[in-house]
Amino acid sequence: QGTRDHAPAQAALRERLLSSVVSCFKRHGAAAIDTPVLELREMLVGKYGEGAKLIYELQDQGGELLALRYDLTVPFARYLAMNKITKMKRYHVAKVYRRDNPATTRGRYREFYQCDFDIAGQFDPMIPDAECLKIVHEILSDLQLGDFVIKVNDRRILNGVFAVCGVPESQFIPACCTVDKLDKMPWEEVRSEMVGEKGLSPEAADRIGEYVQLHGGLDLIEQLLQDPKLSQNKEAKEGLGDMKLLFEYLTLFGITGKISFDLSLARGLDYYTGVIFEAVLLQQENEHVEEPLSVGSVAGGGRYDGLVGMFDAKGRKVPCVGVSIGIERIFSILEQRLEASGEKFRTTETQVLVATPQKNLLAARMKLISELWDAGIKAEMLYKKDPKLLKQLQYCEDTGIPLAAIVGEQELADGVVKLRDVATRKEVRM
Amino acid sequence: QGTRDHAPAQAALRERLLSSVVSCFKRHGAAAIDTPVLELREMLVGKYGEGAKLIYELQDQGGELLALRYDLTVPFARYLAMNKITKMKRYHVAKVYRRDNPATTRGRYREFYQCDFDIAGQFDPMIPDAECLKIVHEILSDLQLGDFVIKVNDRRILNGVFAVCGVPESQFIPACCTVDKLDKMPWEEVRSEMVGEKGLSPEAADRIGEYVQLHGGLDLIEQLLQDPKLSQNKEAKEGLGDMKLLFEYLTLFGITGKISFDLSLARGLDYYTGVIFEAVLLQQENEHVEEPLSVGSVAGGGRYDGLVGMFDAKGRKVPCVGVSIGIERIFSILEQRLEASGEKFRTTETQVLVATPQKNLLAARMKLISELWDAGIKAEMLYKKDPKLLKQLQYCEDTGIPLAAIVGEQELADGVVKLRDVATRKEVRM
Repeated sequence: QGTRDHAPAQAALRERLLSSVVSCFKRHGAAAIDTPVLELREMLVGKYGEGAKLIYELQDQGGELLALRYDLTVPFARYLAMNKITKMKRYHVAKVYRRDNPATTRGRYREFYQCDFDIAGQFDPMIPDAECLKIVHEILSDLQLGDFVIKVNDRRILNGVFAVCGVPESQFIPACCTVDKLDKMPWEEVRSEMVGEKGLSPEAADRIGEYVQLHGGLDLIEQLLQDPKLSQNKEAKEGLGDMKLLFEYLTLFGITGKISFDLSLARGLDYYTGVIFEAVLLQQENEHVEEPLSVGSVAGGGRYDGLVGMFDAKGRKVPCVGVSIGIERIFSILEQRLEASGEKFRTTETQVLVATPQKNLLAARMKLISELWDAGIKAEMLYKKDPKLLKQLQYCEDTGIPLAAIVGEQELADGVVKLRDVATRKEVRM
Repeated sequence: QGTRDHAPAQAALRERLLSSVVSCFKRHGAAAIDTPVLELREMLVGKYGEGAKLIYELQDQGGELLALRYDLTVPFARYLAMNKITKMKRYHVAKVYRRDNPATTRGRYREFYQCDFDIAGQFDPMIPDAECLKIVHEILSDLQLGDFVIKVNDRRILNGVFAVCGVPESQFIPACCTVDKLDKMPWEEVRSEMVGEKGLSPEAADRIGEYVQLHGGLDLIEQLLQDPKLSQNKEAKEGLGDMKLLFEYLTLFGITGKISFDLSLARGLDYYTGVIFEAVLLQQENEHVEEPLSVGSVAGGGRYDGLVGMFDAKGRKVPCVGVSIGIERIFSILEQRLEASGEKFRTTETQVLVATPQKNLLAARMKLISELWDAGIKAEMLYKKDPKLLKQLQYCEDTGIPLAAIVGEQELADGVVKLRDVATRKEVRM
């Protein structure tokens, strides 16, 4: 349940999609790393907030207690700490596992690919953070998914909001998780969860509501920097100052048109400490494919300056910021679109079929195809001793092989091969 | 234990290696598929002989009982049966899991990649089988691993040997598993395991010993076809007839020089039904790297005509033959070789570093790099507001970036960029 096989057409589409994402990561100078699917259970504890209950655990068959990784960020932090690396730009494309209730029609699975790009190291503020947003912008533009917006916020601003609204610090993370649901439910419901489940006072919830429903650009940042209460809060002030710097850099990158400073963005994970962001596709008008109103997030990420320190015996911190591309949802969209278009694309790359027009010529076919393979040419033949020529040409048409190299008795006698263009039926002897 | 992180240099080496293997699979017209790492436990039962105890099981957290896949062959067979596919040529490169005692120095891990190529379908005898051997030959030649030999045998010949030596049919598979150890222990030890653990009679074991120590080429096949006992056994006769045909095809492919018909080859898995094979690297003389005498198998495979039927409700069979490349061992060898050579290769592909020679030019760097990224050029910059030029050029040398695009006050005023070749220090304004 919640997993799927990829047939050749899907695997080919996925390969195309991943290679587009990876080439963007490489364009930004990232190196690849790979970590095991298995992690020690204890490494995953206390990193995922309410997500913890979704971790797949392995049976105790003797030896270490293991779990399947939940994301690629925690393994990356573990890797940095274990190897005492303080500076690194890496990408990682791999499967992660969550015992979630899958909504497979919307591209949510229990086993799914993540495509992560992260920058670790102590640098001048907001320069790497701005690059992460540029990457999201490049990838979503390259893939031509339609219009999108990248929502940006900062955990420090949210913490400041909670503080000035009278929320005790121990309640910041639960409050965050609740605010994060604002993209899926109206404020009234979020408010009642805050007051009911999370035990905030109705007055605090109302004050929070005034802030978290705000979104805008540089104007809003300036306005909040003047806010009599927020401007008195140290964390909020730092967050707002950095947000202003971020917008300056995003202006230089020419991408502010797609960026929205949105105070309702909270993101569920425990480990974020600064900037957070999430890209959302906007509903297209005149769409033929039936889709739910909110297509949902297709990329997200943020700054997590404390995570690496949690894996280091001496607690040494390595500041990090990163982005994860929600490849499964993008894949679902592209797959639907491909189906709707009726376009058929090849699942193999074979250039030529080696064929024979008469019987008893298997040896000639085998000799020729062997030469072609050794010359690096992608070639196939039918696994039959004496196939009919029509069947062989039909196979080319069915699988999109553009050329047939035909060796018959005459060609053998003349020491030539007849090369046939399958589409035009033109033939040349060579 | 038994798993490892891949640092960028290793990940880059692995990418190079995998892309060489995959390009061979594509050259032979295979399509990619992908299946989940998780399989239902019941799917894996009874497929792996003595390997079954090495299967990783997931904890029962409610819902289905799951296990991690042990290889890619059983999931492929399940995929074919589930989708009622009777004909397919596919490759699959992915990680598999075995709770083995890892000998990590020899490239044995609990999590490791497999690279599989398989041909499913009812075809004329030995044509796909011969192609699998050609693929092994191409891959091992391409990778320049040194001299190798591909041992070939047939389960039907082994069964015939066991039958004429007086082994009851129920003991064929255990006898196979014992014979398979002949590459790791001398005949005397194998014999005593047969008589002791497996309960064969000493006479039967001695008769088996006379056969399984034979190896050769076409001559040996002819000799065994004349063997008074074997030639009376139906299975052995079929196997030997097909082996002769296989050698005919391998001659057409021009690869018999590396092929050895070896009666000691048995392979441990339950599911093989016909041809089996295994490629072994031969110890090089004058090798500087210390390696154990037997480098071990680097590829293996065979025919499994019954496996798909085990997953089909009506037991419909789909004959299959395939090959698995032992990529981890090859990787270990290449890694050792690279270390010994002292050669350093780049882990990133960055073409140009955007640099500034004076202070207060971050905006100019950001504008230029943004243009470069948008033009598809792989570019980096240091994440510092005012880095020293020397530090920037040093970064190029450390990471192998060949070019620096320098924008200083003068260049800005003139509307140009200074492009510097890092190695030669030559500069052009453009």
